[in-house]
Amino acid sequence: MIIRDLAEANGTRRRVVSKGWESTRLLLKDDAMGFSFHITTIYAGAELPMHYKNHLEAVYCISGEGSIEDLATGARHEIRPGVLYALDQHDRHILRGRTEMVMACVFNPPVTGREVHDETGAYPLEAEPV
Amino acid sequence: MIIRDLAEANGTRRRVVSKGWESTRLLLKDDAMGFSFHITTIYAGAELPMHYKNHLEAVYCISGEGSIEDLATGARHEIRPGVLYALDQHDRHILRGRTEMVMACVFNPPVTGREVHDETGAYPLEAEPV
Repeated sequence: MIIRDLAEANGTRRRVVSKGWESTRLLLKDDAMGFSFHITTIYAGAELPMHYKNHLEAVYCISGEGSIEDLATGARHEIRPGVLYALDQHDRHILRGRTEMVMACVFNPPVTGREVHDETGAYPLEAEPV
Repeated sequence: MIIRDLAEANGTRRRVVSKGWESTRLLLKDDAMGFSFHITTIYAGAELPMHYKNHLEAVYCISGEGSIEDLATGARHEIRPGVLYALDQHDRHILRGRTEMVMACVFNPPVTGREVHDETGAYPLEAEPV
């Protein structure tokens, strides 16, 4: 059994900070769960174009409000607590935080934890998972 | 891209109610994400012995307080917002809700959604995933 506490993990390398967002990875590939699990904060006003070519991601909004734009269709979906989006088609999208948003994120395959350290500060278009 | 809203899903067969808990499955096997994603409420005072022999599960506490007892070691771990536990060894455990707890749960392999409908009301010892 693995026990992890976000407050403790925030003081370790599990927490990564980038432009417009930060993320604490509570489960990574080496935990051997077959997915990774992150608590990610999108800062108020952030506008993040993203495209995960190699991962499927599901995101559940715990707090805050914003939107996701599906770049394949142009549709915009409201994000608020209780809304989940899943990028089952490796969907190219823009995530916007109207307020600060706290999200639970699941990646398959699991993130190793090294991706963002290699890309620190890069704008996340085409970037590896947050 | 899949968009799901907990408030809407609660009015559908995605929500299952059992003794001491209820769960709304926002992603199931047929969503083809490789995992399922549930928002599960453990009722105040619930004491739930569980053992998922065929699934790995990670659980993140969004709200509420309780504990998890690892039956292999006897250790009890406090659960509060920000705490995650992962049953990476198919750990036999007892989950206790001191208050109502709302949890984000991820299962690998994904739950099909039929498991609990077949077992409605059964005490969840050895049961299928909540």
